[in-house]
Amino acid sequence: MAHEPRLTRALRELLAAQRVAALGTVDEDGTPFVSMVPFVVDGQDRSLVIHISGLAAHTRNLQRRPRASLMICQAEVAGEPVHALPRVTLDIDAADAVAGADAQACRAAYLARFPEAEPMTALGDFRFVRLRPLGARQVAGFGAARSVDAAELLQALGSAT
Amino acid sequence: MAHEPRLTRALRELLAAQRVAALGTVDEDGTPFVSMVPFVVDGQDRSLVIHISGLAAHTRNLQRRPRASLMICQAEVAGEPVHALPRVTLDIDAADAVAGADAQACRAAYLARFPEAEPMTALGDFRFVRLRPLGARQVAGFGAARSVDAAELLQALGSAT
Repeated sequence: MAHEPRLTRALRELLAAQRVAALGTVDEDGTPFVSMVPFVVDGQDRSLVIHISGLAAHTRNLQRRPRASLMICQAEVAGEPVHALPRVTLDIDAADAVAGADAQACRAAYLARFPEAEPMTALGDFRFVRLRPLGARQVAGFGAARSVDAAELLQALGSAT
Repeated sequence: MAHEPRLTRALRELLAAQRVAALGTVDEDGTPFVSMVPFVVDGQDRSLVIHISGLAAHTRNLQRRPRASLMICQAEVAGEPVHALPRVTLDIDAADAVAGADAQACRAAYLARFPEAEPMTALGDFRFVRLRPLGARQVAGFGAARSVDAAELLQALGSAT
């Protein structure tokens, strides 16, 4: 991809390299709540997959309001500056908990990245949720910010892994 | 602090070691938005200080609704597992933009941690905002989660730097 634009490449690299994201949901009072979620990109489905507990606040929040926010930021490194860290915030629709064959596809994608999470998939209160991007705001450094539309996000998700 | 409880120490270490956080705000439609913010702990004031642009979505969101969420998570390290990363989500009240002597105190605290941000403090559209904790949810590893009240948070902020 020699001619890939710089911001497109930065977006693809974030999706491929980072394993945790910050999920923003809102509670019943409309107050935001941010939690850490490990995620995997399902390139076939062009969505992101998370694995969350029905006992957790973010899960109850998503059930009430599936429109949420997901920020993926390059991890900070001690001693290096942080203000220009590449990051992207996705507007997402959190689909209903998947079931049947689709749950198996989510499980396979998730465990390919996180084999250590296998015991958690046996817990009854956990479920897989697909996050579908509606748009995004990307910051790739000082003076390098842009909006990203759903079409480009789907393309990035399809080529991230 | 030889007898400091493990979770108290983990909280203090997160506040001292991490330099970026995920800020959750809500827009005019009640949709959450997560953005990356560098932060510093002002131990004297027992608050966190961020430096944000009046042109940014999170700033407009905070002006409309100062109740927000701030997650601080230990940075992921390539090749190491991520599910048990220590993290804390603070319920925060984002006070109005500070002015006068208090703005100078914020500036001094912020630049002590981020001297490279000095040029940004000369830009008219940036302002300092104090984040005051109302409570928190802390995860220190598998099976180690708890709620933290405002009194303990203030104590942690007072001893984090």
